[in-house]
Amino acid sequence: MDSTSFFRFLFLSLAVFALLLFTRTCLHLLAPADGKLDLLDCTSSYFWCTSKNRIQSMQPASSSVTRPKTSSSPVRDHSSDVPSHPLDPLTVREMTVARSMVLSQTPFSNAPSAVIFHSLALAEPDKSAVEAWSIGGPSPARRASVVARFRGEPFALSVDLDSGAVTALPVPPSGYPTMTVDDMTTSSVAPLSSSAFNRTIIARGVRLSDLACLPLSPGWYGAAEEGRRVVKVQCYTAEGTANFYMRPIEGLTVLVDIDTMEVVEISDKGRSIPIPKAEGTEYRYEAVAAAGRGKDAVAALGLKPISLEQPAGPSFEVDGGGHLVRWAGWEFHLKADSRAGVVVSRARIRDPESGEWRGVMSRGYVSELFVPYMDPTEAWYFKTYMDAGEYGFGLQAMPLVPLNDCPRNAHYMDGVFAAADGRPFVRENMVCLFESYAGDIAWRHSESPITGMDIREARPKVTLVARMAASVANYDYIIDWEFQTDGLIRVKVGLSGILMARGTEYSHLNQIPQNEESYGTMLAENLVGVIHDHFVTFYLDMDIDGANNSFVKVDMTRQSTKEGESPRKSYLKATRRVAKTEKDAQIKLNLYRPAEFHVINPSKTTKVGNPVGYKVVAAATAASLLDLDDPPQRRGAFTNNQIWVTPFNKSEEWAGGLFVYQSQGDDTLATWSERDRPIENKDIVVWYTMGFHHIPCQEDFPIMPTVSASFDLKPVNFFERNPILLAPPNFEKDLPVCMAAAEE
Amino acid sequence: MDSTSFFRFLFLSLAVFALLLFTRTCLHLLAPADGKLDLLDCTSSYFWCTSKNRIQSMQPASSSVTRPKTSSSPVRDHSSDVPSHPLDPLTVREMTVARSMVLSQTPFSNAPSAVIFHSLALAEPDKSAVEAWSIGGPSPARRASVVARFRGEPFALSVDLDSGAVTALPVPPSGYPTMTVDDMTTSSVAPLSSSAFNRTIIARGVRLSDLACLPLSPGWYGAAEEGRRVVKVQCYTAEGTANFYMRPIEGLTVLVDIDTMEVVEISDKGRSIPIPKAEGTEYRYEAVAAAGRGKDAVAALGLKPISLEQPAGPSFEVDGGGHLVRWAGWEFHLKADSRAGVVVSRARIRDPESGEWRGVMSRGYVSELFVPYMDPTEAWYFKTYMDAGEYGFGLQAMPLVPLNDCPRNAHYMDGVFAAADGRPFVRENMVCLFESYAGDIAWRHSESPITGMDIREARPKVTLVARMAASVANYDYIIDWEFQTDGLIRVKVGLSGILMARGTEYSHLNQIPQNEESYGTMLAENLVGVIHDHFVTFYLDMDIDGANNSFVKVDMTRQSTKEGESPRKSYLKATRRVAKTEKDAQIKLNLYRPAEFHVINPSKTTKVGNPVGYKVVAAATAASLLDLDDPPQRRGAFTNNQIWVTPFNKSEEWAGGLFVYQSQGDDTLATWSERDRPIENKDIVVWYTMGFHHIPCQEDFPIMPTVSASFDLKPVNFFERNPILLAPPNFEKDLPVCMAAAEE
Repeated sequence: MDSTSFFRFLFLSLAVFALLLFTRTCLHLLAPADGKLDLLDCTSSYFWCTSKNRIQSMQPASSSVTRPKTSSSPVRDHSSDVPSHPLDPLTVREMTVARSMVLSQTPFSNAPSAVIFHSLALAEPDKSAVEAWSIGGPSPARRASVVARFRGEPFALSVDLDSGAVTALPVPPSGYPTMTVDDMTTSSVAPLSSSAFNRTIIARGVRLSDLACLPLSPGWYGAAEEGRRVVKVQCYTAEGTANFYMRPIEGLTVLVDIDTMEVVEISDKGRSIPIPKAEGTEYRYEAVAAAGRGKDAVAALGLKPISLEQPAGPSFEVDGGGHLVRWAGWEFHLKADSRAGVVVSRARIRDPESGEWRGVMSRGYVSELFVPYMDPTEAWYFKTYMDAGEYGFGLQAMPLVPLNDCPRNAHYMDGVFAAADGRPFVRENMVCLFESYAGDIAWRHSESPITGMDIREARPKVTLVARMAASVANYDYIIDWEFQTDGLIRVKVGLSGILMARGTEYSHLNQIPQNEESYGTMLAENLVGVIHDHFVTFYLDMDIDGANNSFVKVDMTRQSTKEGESPRKSYLKATRRVAKTEKDAQIKLNLYRPAEFHVINPSKTTKVGNPVGYKVVAAATAASLLDLDDPPQRRGAFTNNQIWVTPFNKSEEWAGGLFVYQSQGDDTLATWSERDRPIENKDIVVWYTMGFHHIPCQEDFPIMPTVSASFDLKPVNFFERNPILLAPPNFEKDLPVCMAAAEE
Repeated sequence: MDSTSFFRFLFLSLAVFALLLFTRTCLHLLAPADGKLDLLDCTSSYFWCTSKNRIQSMQPASSSVTRPKTSSSPVRDHSSDVPSHPLDPLTVREMTVARSMVLSQTPFSNAPSAVIFHSLALAEPDKSAVEAWSIGGPSPARRASVVARFRGEPFALSVDLDSGAVTALPVPPSGYPTMTVDDMTTSSVAPLSSSAFNRTIIARGVRLSDLACLPLSPGWYGAAEEGRRVVKVQCYTAEGTANFYMRPIEGLTVLVDIDTMEVVEISDKGRSIPIPKAEGTEYRYEAVAAAGRGKDAVAALGLKPISLEQPAGPSFEVDGGGHLVRWAGWEFHLKADSRAGVVVSRARIRDPESGEWRGVMSRGYVSELFVPYMDPTEAWYFKTYMDAGEYGFGLQAMPLVPLNDCPRNAHYMDGVFAAADGRPFVRENMVCLFESYAGDIAWRHSESPITGMDIREARPKVTLVARMAASVANYDYIIDWEFQTDGLIRVKVGLSGILMARGTEYSHLNQIPQNEESYGTMLAENLVGVIHDHFVTFYLDMDIDGANNSFVKVDMTRQSTKEGESPRKSYLKATRRVAKTEKDAQIKLNLYRPAEFHVINPSKTTKVGNPVGYKVVAAATAASLLDLDDPPQRRGAFTNNQIWVTPFNKSEEWAGGLFVYQSQGDDTLATWSERDRPIENKDIVVWYTMGFHHIPCQEDFPIMPTVSASFDLKPVNFFERNPILLAPPNFEKDLPVCMAAAEE
């Protein structure tokens, strides 16, 4: 078998495997746990089983594919899930009920199969209802929030699961809902219906069976692009590599109408650009090792196994409903979400002095992303993704790989989402939860010989991490919510995966004419990594000891001393300024005008009088350099400041707007904030944007190692004293003995 | 025994223990390994045994003190160490020889006991000599670098250990050498010789036996403070707590002449300020737990043991000489240093494609710190520490605590430094080296169902950490050099320890008059945490594939599109600018004028033509806000930019100058850089300053949890492709089975 045939074989095998996997999931849901569940039908109407995707026309090649070991835990059965907490996501049963309720409404009942569900998820009860609820007590009314389209018209619906009442809510002025997975898979093969497309593919020397196409959101660039839900499809060849991203068919863009699957327009300008070689692009370990590079190299690295061990088991608990987590004084609710990826709710901490539960954050999640590429030419200008709202950050989150994506002691949580037909499906192992210990020090102090005291105190740093990883085509985003024993929450974003790269006619830098822009870095012959930014905007509904909070900017400025006051000429002075309205809290970070950003409860102080609070601590970040009037920046205007604060408003959840696909930027955090509403001593939401500039380099070829950044939510005068002292040092006697056992 | 007596007992016990500990070290060195070593004499001339420190006048109280378990490895015997690498530190034997050579020179031979050794360390051979050396081959000539004082006069000497030649080098125009530990311990008890001092202490209700005093470097504030080596001593009471830092005797400052131990001046203005209470300040785990808070709280936290396990042992090797480390393709030399703390030299990485060893960094270490406090009043204005040059970052590094400061699998390295009399002493377990795995992901990619490929690839992130922790009185600085498998070096600084706090007459914020500044945050009754900054400046002699490198600033700017060029109005464009001279490379970071900072080898490119390089990636940092003409900022002028680049110069090692104690800022990185020397295609040194603003909060009471920041040295077009693929995934089969064993 030559290598070409091998990869084709592999490809076809994977196709079969993918079908088997989805089918298995369906079958799993089909199995009725109590005999009543009969709505999940893995027939031709169920898209996971039947969606036209790019591999459907291929012949099954082999049945020798075995399932890779991705989980040591048995598949969880969700068919009989019942909610045990008001914030628990809709169960399979509830989703089924909600779907039926919607479909039975006018006008949907006229043509139920024409209803496309873009989302079907829990409509969370009011905070006060959650606050009033206690474990085992009656739950607040369960409601579903539905975004659907029917004959081209969008609907935002609220469904009362008890009464069956379906209420229509206002929809945004522009844009479309998040694409369904069906939209994406179907549109990515739509170009094959065009003979012109097929001809150009063949003319470029690519076999149709090697084609890998991606549905790229088009952004919005003025009136000409309105009134039609479209996607831009670009293709690659997977010949000789699983890493087709490194083999772009450059300059070929197919505009597809998502609703009709019609090919609207083909732009085909890159015919002179060779497709970059497959050589050196493969990334799968087995293939790398088989190719003779990996195994030798690994031997040269000489890495021996390393493992995080907890012989007595993990220290966290997850309640019966599977979403309420308790660890080291923390309690929070954790769930998968098809748009946000993962949502952390009602994070509370038990005060070590008083024993009371104290509120920290009511809700935190990735609200939107903005990923503009920096190439203004025809095949690239539109690439200004808003991944959460366009693709669904949760929909794109694949199962985590035990021992690689999360350590051995991790606990996994599934996502249950609605397909385009409103039926539930399960995304296994989508979220993991584990304790981490990197050998770091939470606190230490040694006395120096100067004082004559021989003191060596130290506390190791053990944290709890909740993780989700979304693979939005080439890019993999790893989102960690990390809880510390001292009350700090670190939110970390890791960017990993594979670059989006451009074909070029050049194979060496010295061939590029002096004044020609390459918009990136040449990574290999005929391949350029294009410069781009990533912005990730977090929604942080902080509720410090209750809902009514204030935002305080603590400015640090140079203060000059008065003549004769001091041998010093200057010092740094901190001045607290309470933000009265939203515009007071539109924050642009500046190294030379530093500040702290506190969310305080103005009604509660420590014994000596400091208001209790948490601060948002920015770390490395980046600001968008685009023109404020550039269409993508208008849509991504929520990145115009790094911090914003708004009054809590149920309809303001998504920084780019509820409908961001082809949106015009008329419904973003920036437009809400311009209303300049009062925010002092109110229920407020903090929005923080983390940014990354990415100029590719050769180390991003053929894969891109994880780059991380984080920000902290850190207690500031929240506790009377630091609770970390109360965590034990890692005395030897408390440690497992498996090292000793292994040595015997 | 009441609690007061208990703590006094404890205090005295510790004193005895400290004496025992130092004595033990002496005795250890006394034991001749080969019968020839006879210079280490633990008699009255050896300061570790005899120095007057604050506890010398106390009576031994008890012999019941047992040594806490700080190391599971046996004490290493250094008496017969021999250097096995040209960069290995001076051995005990070499230091002894160098000391003799110095003392035999005129004028020192006239009064050898009047020679004070401020440092005695290896004078590193030229790079070319190290480069030419090979393992087992003849070593370049061994030389010692000595800073000494003799009858008030400073000397910088170079000692050729073979020939015995002692050469005098130029000394800086102002300042004094790093204090000796003898200077610090002796001066901190000098005030006791003043009856005025003793009277005011007693008048404040403090027993002399409870007194804990610190020798504070005075900075420099003009002509009145020149011509005399002085220290400012301030005191605390340790009555009822080991955490005397929380019990300041406010407003009492004693100016001591270090050379004569004369009390020059007493400023005593805080008599109306009560000493804050001991209550709630204790931090030692045993004491916290005994007081009834800790054990309950720990039970409430419910933390179970967690451990980094490596059943097959660590993957790194340390050579026979104990300093050359190899791990995962990396090789570097690691050693303790009395001033810098830890020095990483000659970091090289084996190219996974070519197999060749490639240079990355010739030398990296903490060059200086600058820690200005922001209270301009009499007892505080001078607190503008330069910890490395004033106190010795290595001298202040106490032994690391196994399992708390470093995980189980850590390897420990000792420091061997010279005492004030030039004789060597050993600082045990000063540096640790371990592999870390936090459950993080080095790289991952999953294919989404859009492409129909079922791919889940991930590589866990395992790193190698070299760690040192310096305890400069209250503050503990944790310095980590972390090596990754993809060629990245992360340099992390953790700030931990205890705050330096001020007494105040107020016990609640509402007592402070409207316009009165507090210069900080009230932490408890009568206690204010004072605002301050930390700056840590790193020396990074990058040698990318050889010594001759260039510094390239890659500016990212907004580029507007031309009319009709694109639907986009703007994009981010990267422009490379090679720095010709030093002033081109004086970098102030700016979020809105972003840039990358590359060190490249202009003579070597990748296959497609990118110059090979590394980049300095800044993360969270802070800039000094002090007036450039303020005396402390003149001395700390090396913090005026975040990045500087200078041509390599052996005499430019310490960013604040060789002699920073009471220096006037006439010999800093800022003055060197103003020469504006050429730096293109030269052997260049990059200086990076990491900054922290610290507005204290109640969570910093009674101890301050670790706050970390880092920067990266990251390959940029150094490799043809990312080497991380070559690291294996963490397949289950490769993992230890101790979990399974423990469960059986």
